[in-house]
Amino acid sequence: MIKLLRIKSSSRTEFVDITVGVQRLVAESGVRSGVCYVYAPHTTSAITINENSDPNVGRDILKELNKVIPFDDQYGHSEGNSAAHIKSSLMGVSKAILVEDGRLALGTWQAIFFCEFDGPRDRRVQVKVMAG
Amino acid sequence: MIKLLRIKSSSRTEFVDITVGVQRLVAESGVRSGVCYVYAPHTTSAITINENSDPNVGRDILKELNKVIPFDDQYGHSEGNSAAHIKSSLMGVSKAILVEDGRLALGTWQAIFFCEFDGPRDRRVQVKVMAG
Amino acid sequence: MIKLLRIKSSSRTEFVDITVGVQRLVAESGVRSGVCYVYAPHTTSAITINENSDPNVGRDILKELNKVIPFDDQYGHSEGNSAAHIKSSLMGVSKAILVEDGRLALGTWQAIFFCEFDGPRDRRVQVKVMAG
Repeated sequence: MIKLLRIKSSSRTEFVDITVGVQRLVAESGVRSGVCYVYAPHTTSAITINENSDPNVGRDILKELNKVIPFDDQYGHSEGNSAAHIKSSLMGVSKAILVEDGRLALGTWQAIFFCEFDGPRDRRVQVKVMAG
Repeated sequence: MIKLLRIKSSSRTEFVDITVGVQRLVAESGVRSGVCYVYAPHTTSAITINENSDPNVGRDILKELNKVIPFDDQYGHSEGNSAAHIKSSLMGVSKAILVEDGRLALGTWQAIFFCEFDGPRDRRVQVKVMAG
Repeated sequence: MIKLLRIKSSSRTEFVDITVGVQRLVAESGVRSGVCYVYAPHTTSAITINENSDPNVGRDILKELNKVIPFDDQYGHSEGNSAAHIKSSLMGVSKAILVEDGRLALGTWQAIFFCEFDGPRDRRVQVKVMAG
């Protein structure tokens, strides 16, 4: 079964740490060993896994992405958010994290982030845990 | 079992919407709940998930990628298609989409695209649906 | 069960071909049909799938990534390795490859690479094979 996390982003571009919410759904699933899928069903956001110890890491990633993919660059898409679509495809909407002993097998410094590229908005993240 | 979609790209770089073909294979698998893997077994193409309502979105993504990763940039690879290899790694060849009620659990605006970066060519996409 | 591959990188940025090691773990798992997850539990490395026939392909990918995401760019993160974190998120730490007839269903020219972006270091890669 697919479970949903609800997210309310507050900026145009923003990283929201969803590790605790995903871990809670892993625990609720009762799965001890398997895979956890985290999926953003939007076209201007993404999921990434990176460091959350220093919040500057997320800020640096966003700043550099916003520099490499400018908000305005003679895009053809009329809604004015082409940069957000491009960043979504570069970072990817679908990630899989292994599960062991009923917990996400993340590295010591890894956290799971919802990446907002066209906020602020109300967003959803799909989470599914499969045993195996 | 791995199923194959056959694709014939018609440009050097191009997005081909494969959502209908993938959904057909999900239906044929009989899986009601699980995960669908979509995988490009090539080194100069990729799979991405993004909007297909306005075809300008795909064009903007390609145009910007082709600008950030130039076709020619003193690359060492003698086949002359290094830019295509780089774009393949940036976008990724392997994606997983959740399946519920026998259908791909895509967001409202999401479609699955085969990304051609070194066409035109005959290409294959692997699709596998796992229950769980 | 999660299996580990141990890697010792020897440069600041480097691609290490881990295909043989992953294939060995697939064989040892006894799984004939399923999915193999390859996951880097670090925040300054990644996993990618690309050509290994000409080693210039990996070098071109690294050279271009290092150009698009400069090592120094007024980053806020005090450890001085923000570029490595950014490249990790762009390439992605988690990949899935299909398994058929007890073997990785890679394309003819595809290999699996561990991407070092902040070496040299001792690294680990998680590998898990699920039947289905």
